[in-house]
Amino acid sequence: MPISVKALQKTGPDQPYRVARIELRDPRPDDVLIDIKAAGICHSDIHTIRNEWGEAHFPLTVGHEIAGVVEAVGSDVTEYKVGDRVGVGCLVNSCGECEECQAGQQQNCTNGSVGTYNSKDVDGTITQGGYAEKVVVNKNFVLSIPDALDFDVAAPLLCAGITTYSPLATWDVQVGQKVAVLGLGGLGHMGVQIAAAKGADVTVLSRTLKKEAEARELGAARTLATTDENFFSEHRGEFDMILNTISASIPVDQCMSLLKPRGVMAVVGLPPEKQELSFASVIMGRKALAGSNIGGIPETQEMLDFCAEHGFGAKIEKVSVHEVDDAYDRVVAGDVKFRCVIDTATFADAEVTAE
Amino acid sequence: MPISVKALQKTGPDQPYRVARIELRDPRPDDVLIDIKAAGICHSDIHTIRNEWGEAHFPLTVGHEIAGVVEAVGSDVTEYKVGDRVGVGCLVNSCGECEECQAGQQQNCTNGSVGTYNSKDVDGTITQGGYAEKVVVNKNFVLSIPDALDFDVAAPLLCAGITTYSPLATWDVQVGQKVAVLGLGGLGHMGVQIAAAKGADVTVLSRTLKKEAEARELGAARTLATTDENFFSEHRGEFDMILNTISASIPVDQCMSLLKPRGVMAVVGLPPEKQELSFASVIMGRKALAGSNIGGIPETQEMLDFCAEHGFGAKIEKVSVHEVDDAYDRVVAGDVKFRCVIDTATFADAEVTAE
Repeated sequence: MPISVKALQKTGPDQPYRVARIELRDPRPDDVLIDIKAAGICHSDIHTIRNEWGEAHFPLTVGHEIAGVVEAVGSDVTEYKVGDRVGVGCLVNSCGECEECQAGQQQNCTNGSVGTYNSKDVDGTITQGGYAEKVVVNKNFVLSIPDALDFDVAAPLLCAGITTYSPLATWDVQVGQKVAVLGLGGLGHMGVQIAAAKGADVTVLSRTLKKEAEARELGAARTLATTDENFFSEHRGEFDMILNTISASIPVDQCMSLLKPRGVMAVVGLPPEKQELSFASVIMGRKALAGSNIGGIPETQEMLDFCAEHGFGAKIEKVSVHEVDDAYDRVVAGDVKFRCVIDTATFADAEVTAE
Repeated sequence: MPISVKALQKTGPDQPYRVARIELRDPRPDDVLIDIKAAGICHSDIHTIRNEWGEAHFPLTVGHEIAGVVEAVGSDVTEYKVGDRVGVGCLVNSCGECEECQAGQQQNCTNGSVGTYNSKDVDGTITQGGYAEKVVVNKNFVLSIPDALDFDVAAPLLCAGITTYSPLATWDVQVGQKVAVLGLGGLGHMGVQIAAAKGADVTVLSRTLKKEAEARELGAARTLATTDENFFSEHRGEFDMILNTISASIPVDQCMSLLKPRGVMAVVGLPPEKQELSFASVIMGRKALAGSNIGGIPETQEMLDFCAEHGFGAKIEKVSVHEVDDAYDRVVAGDVKFRCVIDTATFADAEVTAE
């Protein structure tokens, strides 16, 4: 029997959020039913539901930073049991058979992975996300949340955490290496913490120094203002790696010039415009401009365990289910430190305005 | 006492070559005097001496693909002895102390490496290249040429060989991987041979199929014409690596789309114009756009040994010292299969027109 739950839903890109009842599928033998305790607000949620990234399928519930407790498991699920602390990120299915899935890189599934929301599921329905009381997810896309991490600080790790962890792990940041994190928002604040936990000497690059104190608390050795007149010439050849978390255009050649020889700039923020670079910026000094897109399931678990071991989660502000439209405006304005997380307990008293 | 030798020299970017007498420095204790047997013609020589890359210091002798025999060694040289078969590539000195030199990446020397020609040497003189009878080079920048390689087919390995070997080695091309080589000129024909020798499944990407037979002889499984209407859509996601050897603008996003997830496009050709790409091309599928610039001394030796072990050198056309201006025009027109090499024995009868 399908499960009816309260969820935040929009009926169009310009509509306010409403509390609706949506139906979750009856768990299949390999499904896990999760009682959601916290759901992070990712900028992607906003882009999607405002139709800034192409067509959203309304009515729609978004959210792919989900933390909660297992409420029920299908008959084939041995990995999780009722009461387990679990999470779900950006993916809820993939083919499992292609070279990428076999390599644990489900986000690259060459047959098309299924996103947690607004994606066509294997049964043809459109997936609905985590701004809800519960969610049903295939067991292979459920992560285990270590006890050391509270649900609300763990939720954003499922997207912001893995998005920044993966490039830092892929490019093998070492103790003592100089890592610059460009931008200090939801992604950047995770990048700083992860790089610092790996023992790197972390510098935050931001337009101004106004987040300097927060950057230091997160583990950055210093913050530099990229708008300083001589910034690029003074810091030429200084960094082993740059993690670019901003989704606006950047002066690519100038940024590459900040790298040491053999350095890498990993980009996880996607500006809408094409970017310009001279190939000389990568040829001279044998550098690389690399992209990264979330991470696979095994690496996501590795990241959760890493954060727990090092004793940090996301830095968050809790919002109720009634405050999400306001929170969106603040996220877009860059006025959040550093991630908003929906306290799903506030669904309890929320009146359902659509069935 | 300085050593006087015949050399090909230009006195200005538009002047024809002349045979001049130039003076080489008296070998220092750590120098090697080399009797040059063959000198490859690299496109960089042409760019430099035609002043297309900024200021050339005239009168100038170029050439950084040098193969020959040791004629004398300084008192501190134990690595080489008279009669040894040796080569010199693009570098003749570096600081030896920076992180890059210590890592064997002398081409990235952060204190500035010294190029084989048109470069300020440690003594303040301008280095003169290999279109000459002899050259004096610091022992640390002399390579050993295996007996299996003739001088004329070995010479181009010192630039074209290492330029293509290094990215294929850095990005660790594996047996059976699909490697595309974009462009089949002096660099591309080495890339094909090296990738094939590493066991890769090599595809040449060229505007037309006119070099298909040569590509096959070099070890390519096939040649594809990039101008075919559906080329990019038909070969989407096909290659583990692309080695881009052309120095004209390319459609970067379309080229990146040819890569599998986690694929790398390594660029060694430098177009004069800035290139445009969407960061989505690297973010989706976690790809990298990487540059490479020749290679360090240890890797250059590794490459020479690799080529000898696999029984191939460059495919060349020999030219006399009188044919170099014509050869330049043919190189620029792409009408060489695949590298012109100056037979320095032809200096013997050449009349000196400048002292």
